[in-house]
Amino acid sequence: MGASALDTGIEATEARAEARATEGLPRAVRPIRCTVAYDGTAYAGFQRQPGLPTVQGALEDAVSTVTGQPTRIIGAGRTDAGVHACGQVISFVSATVLPLATLRRALNATLPRDIVVGEVEDAAQDFDARFSARSRAYEYVVYNAPAPSPFWRLYSHYVAEALDVERMGEALIHLLGRHDFAAFGSPMERTRNGATVRGGTERTLLTARCWMAQPFVYFYVEADAFLRHMVRQVVGTVLKVGRGRLAPVDVGAILRSRRVGAAGPAAPAQGLYLVKVTY
Amino acid sequence: MGASALDTGIEATEARAEARATEGLPRAVRPIRCTVAYDGTAYAGFQRQPGLPTVQGALEDAVSTVTGQPTRIIGAGRTDAGVHACGQVISFVSATVLPLATLRRALNATLPRDIVVGEVEDAAQDFDARFSARSRAYEYVVYNAPAPSPFWRLYSHYVAEALDVERMGEALIHLLGRHDFAAFGSPMERTRNGATVRGGTERTLLTARCWMAQPFVYFYVEADAFLRHMVRQVVGTVLKVGRGRLAPVDVGAILRSRRVGAAGPAAPAQGLYLVKVTY
Repeated sequence: MGASALDTGIEATEARAEARATEGLPRAVRPIRCTVAYDGTAYAGFQRQPGLPTVQGALEDAVSTVTGQPTRIIGAGRTDAGVHACGQVISFVSATVLPLATLRRALNATLPRDIVVGEVEDAAQDFDARFSARSRAYEYVVYNAPAPSPFWRLYSHYVAEALDVERMGEALIHLLGRHDFAAFGSPMERTRNGATVRGGTERTLLTARCWMAQPFVYFYVEADAFLRHMVRQVVGTVLKVGRGRLAPVDVGAILRSRRVGAAGPAAPAQGLYLVKVTY
Repeated sequence: MGASALDTGIEATEARAEARATEGLPRAVRPIRCTVAYDGTAYAGFQRQPGLPTVQGALEDAVSTVTGQPTRIIGAGRTDAGVHACGQVISFVSATVLPLATLRRALNATLPRDIVVGEVEDAAQDFDARFSARSRAYEYVVYNAPAPSPFWRLYSHYVAEALDVERMGEALIHLLGRHDFAAFGSPMERTRNGATVRGGTERTLLTARCWMAQPFVYFYVEADAFLRHMVRQVVGTVLKVGRGRLAPVDVGAILRSRRVGAAGPAAPAQGLYLVKVTY
């Protein structure tokens, strides 16, 4: 077997790391950043939970197997059970000396086929997929036709009734900007010094639009961060406008009420996709 | 509960059938024809097999439940395990008096969500979804991009290498017309008078084209009938042309060889869709 350019590359990198180790210097700790796409159908959400299949768990298993080092990863967005992603971003630190292309190939060969790693890059020392993110964008897909499609049942929300896309667009405008979105979701909980901390409910909605491309109706929303269930509550509420059960201005009133439970019902998980994270 | 116009309709129909029965006339046997779409992922193919989940089995269960009469159905195409359909056609005869719209709604409420009944129509007395069909059309979907998509893994065949669509189109032309397709598949077996009968291997390919709409490459083939595995063998062989491993004329030579095993390998099931049946 002749050594390919790639093998030679790996050997050179390994030789350098070896030399560094021999010199008594610590092995470099590499911060790595990946984009990840996944079909969320089979998972109990992104976040690791004991005894349940999660996207984070599958990714940590793959990174640990490939690098030979138990590794914790951080994700930009904690998607719920059944929610998909095209542009999730994860970060982890590793002492691996694998070239990025090899790491990517090895991860995809190890991961189940419903999770695919896209770009793999070296990241800045202080990069954290979650806390470095400036904004997240989600897309929501509605399958809007007289009959459902068996192919879209896990990848969209089926609505048989005709939807007024123009009025839904008007409704979304009421949500743009910096607001207290308490009516549309609850803050994610964080653990800090062993105690559970609930954050505030103010968020900045940067973009919110919807359009029709038959048989689909798409929603696109971007915010600095989202409350738990916020996108699905927004879509569920705006769909009421599309069906004529609420006026566009009612959505503004629901927002201003800041009353938990005023919005919704949440649109189902399988229509939702985390599509982009901006840093 | 007030009777809706629909209920009234059912009652009127039932009253007529009742009257007919009272008069000693036989209940009408209605030949019914439906178009059916299904996600073939969870099924061991269309054709009923004891102890296995099949599309025919699920449809027969649903029709039998809804009509209250054990019913056998006939399908236009016997799709393999994992193969999908947008335009399968089935036929059955039933003594049901349900209006067509009610029957359709009841079937879709009873069927698993990966099988959807589209049009439901009364058919001619001698209509048989399989033997009345003049032609079948299949589409084959290739996902052709540097990285696979987790969303298309069950609904397309992933090919990473660039494909030469023009040369694949040229190759397909060699297959058009009436030929012995023995190199591309085996005849379906039928049971006649208790004996297994193998048909011939001549078929007429009416249409065969391919085109690219990134990241997809599509194949569309239509024939009077297809041999078992024929579409997948044709696509698998033509993909070799697309990758530069065969010349377009080689596909003509494989056809003329009539040698079992000369073509292929068969492209995988999950890229294949039965899209149209013409009567």
